[in-house]
Amino acid sequence: MGGTHIKTASIVSIGNELLSGRTVDTNAAHAARQLRTVGVPVVSIYSVADEEPAIRRTLGLATAEADVVVTTGGLGPTDDDLTRQAIAGYLGVELVCREDLLGQLREFFANRGVDMPERNAIQACVPQGACAIKNPKGTAPGIRAEKDGKLLFALPGVPSEMRHMLENAVLPALRPMASGQTVVVRRLRCYGAGESTIAEMVGDAMRRGQNPLVNCTVHAGVITLEIVATADRNEEAEKMAAQQEQHLRASLGRLVYGTGDQTLAEIVGERLAREGKSVAVAESCTGGLLAKLITDIPGSSRYFACGWVTYSNDAKKRELEVPAEMIDEYGAVSEPVARAMAQGARRRAGTDYAISITGIAGPGGGNEQKPVGLAYIAVAGGESVNTSRFVFSSDRSSVRSRAAQMALNLLRLELGI
Amino acid sequence: MGGTHIKTASIVSIGNELLSGRTVDTNAAHAARQLRTVGVPVVSIYSVADEEPAIRRTLGLATAEADVVVTTGGLGPTDDDLTRQAIAGYLGVELVCREDLLGQLREFFANRGVDMPERNAIQACVPQGACAIKNPKGTAPGIRAEKDGKLLFALPGVPSEMRHMLENAVLPALRPMASGQTVVVRRLRCYGAGESTIAEMVGDAMRRGQNPLVNCTVHAGVITLEIVATADRNEEAEKMAAQQEQHLRASLGRLVYGTGDQTLAEIVGERLAREGKSVAVAESCTGGLLAKLITDIPGSSRYFACGWVTYSNDAKKRELEVPAEMIDEYGAVSEPVARAMAQGARRRAGTDYAISITGIAGPGGGNEQKPVGLAYIAVAGGESVNTSRFVFSSDRSSVRSRAAQMALNLLRLELGI
Repeated sequence: MGGTHIKTASIVSIGNELLSGRTVDTNAAHAARQLRTVGVPVVSIYSVADEEPAIRRTLGLATAEADVVVTTGGLGPTDDDLTRQAIAGYLGVELVCREDLLGQLREFFANRGVDMPERNAIQACVPQGACAIKNPKGTAPGIRAEKDGKLLFALPGVPSEMRHMLENAVLPALRPMASGQTVVVRRLRCYGAGESTIAEMVGDAMRRGQNPLVNCTVHAGVITLEIVATADRNEEAEKMAAQQEQHLRASLGRLVYGTGDQTLAEIVGERLAREGKSVAVAESCTGGLLAKLITDIPGSSRYFACGWVTYSNDAKKRELEVPAEMIDEYGAVSEPVARAMAQGARRRAGTDYAISITGIAGPGGGNEQKPVGLAYIAVAGGESVNTSRFVFSSDRSSVRSRAAQMALNLLRLELGI
Repeated sequence: MGGTHIKTASIVSIGNELLSGRTVDTNAAHAARQLRTVGVPVVSIYSVADEEPAIRRTLGLATAEADVVVTTGGLGPTDDDLTRQAIAGYLGVELVCREDLLGQLREFFANRGVDMPERNAIQACVPQGACAIKNPKGTAPGIRAEKDGKLLFALPGVPSEMRHMLENAVLPALRPMASGQTVVVRRLRCYGAGESTIAEMVGDAMRRGQNPLVNCTVHAGVITLEIVATADRNEEAEKMAAQQEQHLRASLGRLVYGTGDQTLAEIVGERLAREGKSVAVAESCTGGLLAKLITDIPGSSRYFACGWVTYSNDAKKRELEVPAEMIDEYGAVSEPVARAMAQGARRRAGTDYAISITGIAGPGGGNEQKPVGLAYIAVAGGESVNTSRFVFSSDRSSVRSRAAQMALNLLRLELGI
């Protein structure tokens, strides 16, 4: 492959456990992320069973559309590990057993104080003319082969082994051959508007086929915009990504709360820690989720003092001093009660801020005036308490997760981030 | 498809985020598991980019090898959602916009008090001759179409929407058409021992290639044993599965806490509700996660009264009446403090039971005497308080999740389940 330029990759994940759904294929996503960093984007991913004809056929499909194919799985010692045989069949060669690899295998077992089970001998076999790839973390060596100008790497399915060999054998081999284009990826994390509103706000930036490309994903109300800039030189790609980021930030204003993988809880926590401020929470329908999100962050004890999950009305009265008459008059899910909960939590905990949530997570408990998904969120800080009303859609779990994220977002805005 | 028998399925996962590795494809594994339960095993899984020609080509590959194709993703409202167009292209028909679907979309937004963004109108379009599949959890309807005797279902990529529509539209349609062997799947949920201990306890039951097959997965300390029985007739498969279940239950005793997808929180909640008992929780290192798990269950307000997230020592003293001298003498992470927290929570909330957790979630805060992962859990009930000491391994998130599950398990045992 001396002067060949590699532009694209395809991934073939091999194993019955993938097709039965017992195992979620995390290898493919990992390999795709890594391959992209050396300038070799993945154009297709296939999952196939541990069957020789199926693997051979899929290798044909994958090599037809990409310059390099990475397979994972099927290199174990048991009868249903057939990747080796399938690759030999695809290449049209025999499997040859290599004494040097057999020696390494025996040594691997000897180091663990056991004899090599006979069935492991198959792992010393590679297709004729192919190279073996060292596997310092397990018994199965990988395979590197070539056919019709296409490169083929076979790696084990055990994630730790696969990752190690990808990083130490596959990526170094591909880097100098990659077609030259560098890819720079930046992420903007946004909260406070839906996917389509954000798409409208950024105008043409999300149109397909552009460079930089802007992709959009949503999770629990958090929108992630991923900027992918491709250029011949790294500085150029960095510059394009930075310009696009600036454009998106200008269009979205305060909807953008962070970058990379930052969560709302992280952003809010950093600011509280930096300013030496503290927060307490009082939850009803979210049932502890808001406190959990805040304390997911290592070091959150610097700013998080106390949380109450006042699920019953008694608890709201007793622990947060919400007046009984208020609950009688307005109901537990109401603006005054949200306000009183936040005030009570702040007063009792003696914190700078307090957030409260009271709502109806469902599926039961709703009515026409107060539907499932209704939530009041209050943020107490300084001299004021701000309360907001929301109706979150979908099921119990989504309502809870949306309400908790929204509460963090309101605190973020209160903190001026 | 009147008399047609459906034997196999193929899954096509659509989205640039899958090929860039930003998103791990959990939809495919879920769909594969569900399709198997109606006797339609998955023979291939493809991931493709949001590109019309690629999607069309993959639909061709998938329909060539399977009787039914399920796609996920690409039904959103933005320009890079192209599944609808690709299916129309594959079928060789136009997209038609349906007034009834448009009305439903407008209603969906109106219920949330907002106008429908214009770009969402595309979601009311389906390929000519195809049916729409209701999506009660989101805006994107699914699509059901047919070509050359092959069935095609297109579902959204949002997991909650996809799962709902798969269960309520796809599986019921396939069940009567599925041919061949019936597969009965039963699950036993276990807690209290590791995977290898459980494997040893059940003897040969987990050997490969058997029928029924027994698969094992672990998540947050919960071990799920999946019994897969295959037979010509359903009654036969049911009988085989039942016998295997009986054998596993006899071997594992009280390690088995439930079946199917039951969580510890569900099992404990059912028992508390049935007996009219109540529970409160007091958490430190789990930071609200235990309360969150309990209140994940709809109707948990019948038995869950109140939770405290006493993260600071001040909060432990003030809210739960943990004596200051006790914290000074033993430290916040200690057996006496766990006990005092549970007693304080039970006394204040006036509940039948209270659970407390105090520990070191990490990554910081550990030392030689009290390492990261150390946790004390106390269960107060009747006349007694039982406390236990654990050292959970791995990262902050695992330590928290293991501690919370263990607390629920201790309450389960206390309740005699």
